[in-house]
Amino acid sequence: MVDQKSASSLNKSCVALSGGVGGAKLALGLSKVLSRDQLDIIANTGDDFEHIGLYICPDLDTVTYTLADLSNKELGWGQAGETWDFLDALQRLGGESWFRLGDRDMATHVFRTQALNNGLSLSQATEQITQRLGIKHRIIPMCDMPVATKVNVESGKLMAFQHYFVRDRCEPKVTGFEFEGISDASPSLGFKAALTNNNLGSIIICPSNPFVSVDPVLKLPGVMAAIEAANAPTIAVSPIVGGQAIKGPAAKMMKELGMPQTALAVAQHYQGRIDGFVIDEADATMAADIEALGIKTLVTKTMMRSLQDRVDLAEACLTFAESF
Amino acid sequence: MVDQKSASSLNKSCVALSGGVGGAKLALGLSKVLSRDQLDIIANTGDDFEHIGLYICPDLDTVTYTLADLSNKELGWGQAGETWDFLDALQRLGGESWFRLGDRDMATHVFRTQALNNGLSLSQATEQITQRLGIKHRIIPMCDMPVATKVNVESGKLMAFQHYFVRDRCEPKVTGFEFEGISDASPSLGFKAALTNNNLGSIIICPSNPFVSVDPVLKLPGVMAAIEAANAPTIAVSPIVGGQAIKGPAAKMMKELGMPQTALAVAQHYQGRIDGFVIDEADATMAADIEALGIKTLVTKTMMRSLQDRVDLAEACLTFAESF
Repeated sequence: MVDQKSASSLNKSCVALSGGVGGAKLALGLSKVLSRDQLDIIANTGDDFEHIGLYICPDLDTVTYTLADLSNKELGWGQAGETWDFLDALQRLGGESWFRLGDRDMATHVFRTQALNNGLSLSQATEQITQRLGIKHRIIPMCDMPVATKVNVESGKLMAFQHYFVRDRCEPKVTGFEFEGISDASPSLGFKAALTNNNLGSIIICPSNPFVSVDPVLKLPGVMAAIEAANAPTIAVSPIVGGQAIKGPAAKMMKELGMPQTALAVAQHYQGRIDGFVIDEADATMAADIEALGIKTLVTKTMMRSLQDRVDLAEACLTFAESF
Repeated sequence: MVDQKSASSLNKSCVALSGGVGGAKLALGLSKVLSRDQLDIIANTGDDFEHIGLYICPDLDTVTYTLADLSNKELGWGQAGETWDFLDALQRLGGESWFRLGDRDMATHVFRTQALNNGLSLSQATEQITQRLGIKHRIIPMCDMPVATKVNVESGKLMAFQHYFVRDRCEPKVTGFEFEGISDASPSLGFKAALTNNNLGSIIICPSNPFVSVDPVLKLPGVMAAIEAANAPTIAVSPIVGGQAIKGPAAKMMKELGMPQTALAVAQHYQGRIDGFVIDEADATMAADIEALGIKTLVTKTMMRSLQDRVDLAEACLTFAESF
């Protein structure tokens, strides 16, 4: 449904900030209604890490595989129809196998690592990968310098994110987060250009984990200032629906941080950084409390089960952006 | 058949110098009749190269996979039952795919590259790999420093060996060979120890390519002096049978270098460096000419089609060594 209002919104450009699975779903929806020139998908790189000699970018790759229609929908990560012969053989050799690297997925990491070692930036390597995979839209890493999300856990340890997330299956109780290197990092040129685009109509924070997928993007030096200077509303989509995270440890983290596991609490977390908030119909009763924070609120269907759901939510967000 | 003579030979230790496929077959045969303490298999590393960020050792791996009973007998390289999802995906990304890296094979290269980057020597990495693959015997790289076999070709170019061998399928006409870095290299500690073993009974040059698999091993500084000082005969097995190389470009190289493609020409190539030469029954008529070079000659079946053939040839070589 493209009415006059959304048609007008569709003429402007959009910056989508995304983490992994949930964010990638909305990014895919946006890519179905916006042209290449109208969409900049910025992926979190705080969960990037070096592993068995390879430079691995889980969120960037989830977005890439999703837009290339290669993503493994059952696993929620990696490629569809993936095989595991490399990992089985590595395990036999006593190599590290806790991070599940599929045979096809390996090609991305080897290709990217080689590109980086040859002096290309992560943005340039990503451009090559996405173009080779036939993706028309731009997928841009939030920055080209290493920023490493670290998880403070109850024991007092500061854990590398993938150790917390994959190796230890989010079991340790979190007490906070740090983004190593972020004060020395700057947004990638592509991210900067996207935020200063004269035709910018919306900044959409996709339904990704607020703490470990979105905060590293927003906390990059200069990003909030650019967002505030932009003549476009910033709209976040709640990753919490009916008190649960659709995917991943967001709700568990909120509980451990002493926050209610609600869309309202997510809105409070983003307060002062967003203009609009999109919540699910299941959370409609919270709309007034969110509006009371000074955040305009849209209640709609936010569960993205089908491709049409993704497109519908993308259109709803763009239409919502028009209302500011 | 282990008679009194070979039983005595079997009590001594043996150093086997090997390149890829043919050499690995005899090394496997030797491993079936000699204990771990009695056998040091030295693999050529002149054809090692860095490729897509990985340190790849084709001869070392062929010997390793052969002794682990993992080798791909149809291809003559790589692992049995190998899959190619990594390479297909790399090709799609526009990565270099001329060197066929299977999914399981990749684990070896990734594991080794990581080990080397962590400061292990190639010998140490090889020990880890062979032990994890359940190999009882020692497989030792000829050296722990980079030595790169280069092929002089007719056009005047000096080609990296794998570019000549795999990428260009041995098509360029060779005019000679160089071993880059060899004058600064020294044999690995394991190789040195093997050659100075007090119990050494034989040094066996397996039926590998004399120019690109054996010469780099023999030309390492100090190796020929150690071989001459050893109280054991050096015996080479001809890789040329009936005027043909069993596998690989040895015969083609001999032709291009202006040499007859015969076992006799191989013996002449090794003259002054070996005490004994093993030729196939098909070449029996050359025995007298080889003996005339001052090289004691054994005529036997050298074609290794079955495991029993490998064992029989190993025993024949060890028995032959006893006769010096």
